Amino acid sequence: MTRYRLTPLAQSLPATVPFVGPDTHERQVGRAFVARIGANENVFGPSPNAVQAMAETEQWMYGDAESYELRRALAAHHGTTMDHIIVGEGIDGLLGYLVRLFVGQGDAVVTSDGAYPTFNYHVAGFGGTIHKVPYRDDHEDPSALFAKAAEVDAKLVYLANPDNPMGTWHSGATLAQAMEDLPAGSLFVLDEAYVECAPEGTELPLPKDDPRVIRMRTFSKAYGLAGARVGYAIAAPELITAFHKVRNHFGMNRAAQAGALAALQDQEWLAQTLDQVSRARDRIGQIAGDNGLIPLPSAANFVAVDCGRDGAFAKAVLDGLVARGIFVRMPFATPQNRCIRISCGTDAQLDALAAALPAAIEDAKNT
Amino acid sequence: MTRYRLTPLAQSLPATVPFVGPDTHERQVGRAFVARIGANENVFGPSPNAVQAMAETEQWMYGDAESYELRRALAAHHGTTMDHIIVGEGIDGLLGYLVRLFVGQGDAVVTSDGAYPTFNYHVAGFGGTIHKVPYRDDHEDPSALFAKAAEVDAKLVYLANPDNPMGTWHSGATLAQAMEDLPAGSLFVLDEAYVECAPEGTELPLPKDDPRVIRMRTFSKAYGLAGARVGYAIAAPELITAFHKVRNHFGMNRAAQAGALAALQDQEWLAQTLDQVSRARDRIGQIAGDNGLIPLPSAANFVAVDCGRDGAFAKAVLDGLVARGIFVRMPFATPQNRCIRISCGTDAQLDALAAALPAAIEDAKNT
Repeated sequence: MTRYRLTPLAQSLPATVPFVGPDTHERQVGRAFVARIGANENVFGPSPNAVQAMAETEQWMYGDAESYELRRALAAHHGTTMDHIIVGEGIDGLLGYLVRLFVGQGDAVVTSDGAYPTFNYHVAGFGGTIHKVPYRDDHEDPSALFAKAAEVDAKLVYLANPDNPMGTWHSGATLAQAMEDLPAGSLFVLDEAYVECAPEGTELPLPKDDPRVIRMRTFSKAYGLAGARVGYAIAAPELITAFHKVRNHFGMNRAAQAGALAALQDQEWLAQTLDQVSRARDRIGQIAGDNGLIPLPSAANFVAVDCGRDGAFAKAVLDGLVARGIFVRMPFATPQNRCIRISCGTDAQLDALAAALPAAIEDAKNT
Repeated sequence: MTRYRLTPLAQSLPATVPFVGPDTHERQVGRAFVARIGANENVFGPSPNAVQAMAETEQWMYGDAESYELRRALAAHHGTTMDHIIVGEGIDGLLGYLVRLFVGQGDAVVTSDGAYPTFNYHVAGFGGTIHKVPYRDDHEDPSALFAKAAEVDAKLVYLANPDNPMGTWHSGATLAQAMEDLPAGSLFVLDEAYVECAPEGTELPLPKDDPRVIRMRTFSKAYGLAGARVGYAIAAPELITAFHKVRNHFGMNRAAQAGALAALQDQEWLAQTLDQVSRARDRIGQIAGDNGLIPLPSAANFVAVDCGRDGAFAKAVLDGLVARGIFVRMPFATPQNRCIRISCGTDAQLDALAAALPAAIEDAKNT
């Protein structure tokens, strides 16, 4: 990159992607997957009302730069004002803006070793220094995260609840308790992408304008709109306002705004989806158990399955599934990478998983 | 913004929007516009094939992080390889990434006084220093821009051809000739958002991998997909690769990718749209002339109309139109702000313009 006068930071960054997308995988293997159950997409799909709202949107008009109707509905849903809510291009986009607002060259940030890689991508992209703490019994460890934040004077501390990729979770009360040790100078970035799938009591039971925390939510998971790219954050208005300094104001797809609004308003569909998710989690657990593997308890729309050996073995099982048209993923870091991560699928997709898994395990044992 | 530890740069930035969106305007006036012809949207709409492709997209799946099919089609369309093309969340999004790659605190950038404000928003957002040169006879002035770039050692030089907000244009040959004075250290950012609407010979007639230039294109204008948020850039692969360092890889809406592909493949619809745009430009000119105003020649999907006095008078005319339900905009900078800018509309919308304009002018004269 010598010909162009990029900034020193940009010069130093790799051209990379936080993880390989399902479509790229399919091109690599040269055919569509039998079961696309690796990216924690919601195969049960969005509310038909959302589909209709998107189809009826006039796409010649720019999207509303304020996402006004959607924010108004979200405020009512969460019992906040509209000023507590920012809508953006998925949690990924919002994390990028947040990191940009807080993190300059050398600023410290804390996350768990093996947590969501896109957060790390953004931190690296703005020159921040990432400090990692290990998982504890396959759970993210809020006390260790906050202690590390104090040690390194972190500007941001990231935790997902429920966790991705493990599916484990803490009660909101546990997190609120742990937050008593959150240093005053650190903002808690609480990624609740999967929280709709979790048991009651998982949401953080603190006021939405608690200045210590920003919560990230999405329509990509329980609401089944990953392709639409609609995320939102909830925080004190003073922090939400800061997003207007840097965000792509006209970045929101118009149909996506309408689809998300319709999806939010169809809580009956959501309930039905969550029921399907719950049953699929059970079935994945059943299939894993039938094959001598150990499913971890999950409060998300996927299940981490312990393959019982090391990362190389889990990778071999994963490769065997992918070779049989079953797209799954696995954690990046040790010791979580003894698991593979299987997203909730339809009955037919899980039938295909059940059919493929024995041979994949057999192959892995013979590797 | 004292409670949060934003970066010093973020602290210093205003919470702002480059310009106020049409939906926000409508909320402010409390009703929908009779004619939404102020944001250079394409009221003639996208190809029905694009509408269908979007409606048929499974939105539960993430969008393709590589926009592979769209980039492949764009490469064929432009006679390049896929590696010459990056797809992003509108030109706005791509300009943000480009500025981020090149501009650090205090880095110099050159643009015209009164050109596209979103570029300036991004430059300010990364701490760059904006240098402006005046328009010349209502045209952007490439020679002055490049001379200024040499003077201030600019990393980026921005020019839109055709220009927004004036609608004026240079032949591609003129720009190529002027580029002989582009300093070696400056990248020419050529915004061709409206180029499909322009006469043959307006596109820059240089190889697509000329390392001195990056061209920005969009599906928001001629293709009628502003709400979908699909822009792309064409440049040498070495520069395109740099976008992968910082972009939101999974930021592209899945339906938008499919819609843009279908729109690109329906060149017949495009031709029909361009014919409608051309007729609407003529009609706007006619209406302006009938009211004693002077339409500027335009190669875009709008017409700048000289109201014959100063900015205050043009603003009064604009206010009179808006009060009558006709949404138009106007240039920000003197002397271009003696004009109002009217986007191409349907016959009915331009009928409404013709009906409202005499009274708006009369009101302005009496202000």
